[in-house]
Amino acid sequence: MMAKQPSPIRVGIVGFGTVGQATAAIIAAHQAEIVQRVGRPLEITAVCRRHFPADLVLPPGARVVTDWRAVVTAPDVDLLVETMGGTTTARDVIAAALRAGKPVVTANKNLLAEHGDELFALAVQQGLPLGFEAAVAGGVPVIRAVAEGAAGDRLHRVFGILNGTANFILTRMQQTGADFTAALIEAQAAGYAEADPAFDVDGFDARDKLVILARIAFGGRVTPADIPTLGIRAIRAVDIHYARRLDSTIRLIASAARGPAGVEIAVRPWLVPLHSMLARVEGVNNAVFLDGQKLGLQMFYGRGAGGDATGVAVVSDLIELASDLGAGNLAPKLLAGFGAGSPLVLSQNPEPASWYLRLTVGDRPGILAHVAEALAHEGINIDSVIQEPHMEKQCLSFVITVEPVAEPVVLRALGVINQCPFMLEPVLLLRMDG
Amino acid sequence: MMAKQPSPIRVGIVGFGTVGQATAAIIAAHQAEIVQRVGRPLEITAVCRRHFPADLVLPPGARVVTDWRAVVTAPDVDLLVETMGGTTTARDVIAAALRAGKPVVTANKNLLAEHGDELFALAVQQGLPLGFEAAVAGGVPVIRAVAEGAAGDRLHRVFGILNGTANFILTRMQQTGADFTAALIEAQAAGYAEADPAFDVDGFDARDKLVILARIAFGGRVTPADIPTLGIRAIRAVDIHYARRLDSTIRLIASAARGPAGVEIAVRPWLVPLHSMLARVEGVNNAVFLDGQKLGLQMFYGRGAGGDATGVAVVSDLIELASDLGAGNLAPKLLAGFGAGSPLVLSQNPEPASWYLRLTVGDRPGILAHVAEALAHEGINIDSVIQEPHMEKQCLSFVITVEPVAEPVVLRALGVINQCPFMLEPVLLLRMDG
Repeated sequence: MMAKQPSPIRVGIVGFGTVGQATAAIIAAHQAEIVQRVGRPLEITAVCRRHFPADLVLPPGARVVTDWRAVVTAPDVDLLVETMGGTTTARDVIAAALRAGKPVVTANKNLLAEHGDELFALAVQQGLPLGFEAAVAGGVPVIRAVAEGAAGDRLHRVFGILNGTANFILTRMQQTGADFTAALIEAQAAGYAEADPAFDVDGFDARDKLVILARIAFGGRVTPADIPTLGIRAIRAVDIHYARRLDSTIRLIASAARGPAGVEIAVRPWLVPLHSMLARVEGVNNAVFLDGQKLGLQMFYGRGAGGDATGVAVVSDLIELASDLGAGNLAPKLLAGFGAGSPLVLSQNPEPASWYLRLTVGDRPGILAHVAEALAHEGINIDSVIQEPHMEKQCLSFVITVEPVAEPVVLRALGVINQCPFMLEPVLLLRMDG
Repeated sequence: MMAKQPSPIRVGIVGFGTVGQATAAIIAAHQAEIVQRVGRPLEITAVCRRHFPADLVLPPGARVVTDWRAVVTAPDVDLLVETMGGTTTARDVIAAALRAGKPVVTANKNLLAEHGDELFALAVQQGLPLGFEAAVAGGVPVIRAVAEGAAGDRLHRVFGILNGTANFILTRMQQTGADFTAALIEAQAAGYAEADPAFDVDGFDARDKLVILARIAFGGRVTPADIPTLGIRAIRAVDIHYARRLDSTIRLIASAARGPAGVEIAVRPWLVPLHSMLARVEGVNNAVFLDGQKLGLQMFYGRGAGGDATGVAVVSDLIELASDLGAGNLAPKLLAGFGAGSPLVLSQNPEPASWYLRLTVGDRPGILAHVAEALAHEGINIDSVIQEPHMEKQCLSFVITVEPVAEPVVLRALGVINQCPFMLEPVLLLRMDG
């Protein structure tokens, strides 16, 4: 006896690359679980990409098209998946699909960080959901967790390690003593970094994800341009070495914290204790921390990227939207705090923190006195000075850590120090736990 | 201009203790966010408990009743919250509410572990949701994460630290060198342990939570009685000391792993490396790890108990159920894999693992030779032997770690060793990473 097959919910995929293909493969492999949860199967009826190589595995029965317009308004597509990336065509694709009345699932953090306002406002206007769990931390369900936390608690802070490529590089520098360039080449060889790695190593990818998390956590608007962003190119093997002397290592941290003066938000490298959870996040993994009044500190950890993990998140969103579609209950869920909202008040008055200063100098007598004088002039207390013996005198690195002080004060002192003739390059400034 | 207030969704709470009161307080404090997400406010119309002390803070306008029957079938209750605990009356309360057509939210892991089959089958039969995010790991949204993982990936293993009280005790033993009894008294003084701590320290609470997680992860039935369970009473200060000699510490781990021979499932103390994420979970915190083919290793961490964190999870379930109720889209979500399902096939043939054996003996010549002979007889290879110098000879503890071997083989050797006249108590056996 065969069970009667209910009519499928039809999915169109625009952008059939790694994530799009993983999404199709997961739907094929987990159709039984999908039917169990949605009540109806998912069927991929159309896939769109620029070229279709002969060896590309296609979902059985799916139309292949090269013009996205042939998918987003097609009558045989109930739900649209956008996995093409970029911020120009992808924006048109999602907007056109919403205007055509189709719910959308996207993994495109870059687009949401840049044009989230417009797209979420359109979704709310159309009364349609726009799923984006896959946009942050791959398969780790952080979007929902942050939204739940924001709905039932007062969140103080959301922060974490949001870029797997930068974290892989820092982890390899820590494990092997390699310099940045060598670790980057290793990341590229392993397929974790692009030929042009700027988006990952200069912190822009983490910044886009932080825009999304901060908006959900604090319910206000913030744009990538609002976020001071510093990547990891200036980190040297000697910094990892000195970090270890301080029982610490280095991580690229994206953080948004709500304080009395507003939200402090930044992407920058931090010195973190070796025994901390942040330090335990290694390789291409991501971790999102959430600090709430009632919930205390929560952490969500896992693979932050890769087609499979991202595909699982896309399918998870698809299952939810398909269930709601099947029940005739589509609504712009999770978007309430995102689409609307006045701009977040950003703090102009940062809280004091401890700092790590690495100076690279041509050695000669009196350098430490000069530097100490510049710090003292700003009222900054030195906590420790570390200089390895037997370093090359022409290019010597040493480290000063200072007691908690607000960043603008440190920057004033660095303005003076960086002008000194013995300085071979600007001071590297890392934040430490406040 | 005043916005028109939509009609509220009415909530009845049976069991108005710590969690019930926290739930009411969170609803009162976050009504604006709730309206934003549900479209309508939540109103608590009835609370039930045995006695109402004069100083108890009650939700404004709520009826107070002492008979749960006056809540579960009442026409002014749309959604029922069960936060009374226990497995007898609570079972009747939930069953009666479902029979009366009311969706239910519960935090009662003990009840779900014991009678989940019956209650979930009833929910499915009634076409109603039964929310239980609060039953495992307090405010950390692990139920949904495991369900999502199971829907879009093949999960190999779910494991973690599921009891905050036991973890507090082990952490204090590690931090202060205290023995089990002293750390337990400290936990009781801090309000983290009951006067009768058996449920927490003997592993039963962790076992109930593991039942719930394993059922969702693997989609089959398992009962508390199926799970070999060992608590932490036998852990001594000397074990923490020897653990540190092995760069490790001790955690109570609940684990269900799918292997070729079936699911291996147990609650027991493990020796875990000091640098591991498991060791970094300290105090009353919980952590759930999920290992999937596509997702890799995920971890969800946070406060596992306490009224506030559990209340946030209850409210999170309430928001979801209220949204669905408001949209006329109630369905027994997340229960598909839970209510039905054949029993999980449990492995009768455990995988090899490394083991820590602590022996407590009255010292005399030849003991190590005897023990080594008993291990060799079973083909077990010794990896290390650690004995601190200058221990008291009348009651001396030493440790043997052995290379990977299946548990039944170790148990056969221990059967022989425990019979030896020099043994003052049975060998303490801790699992190490396989």
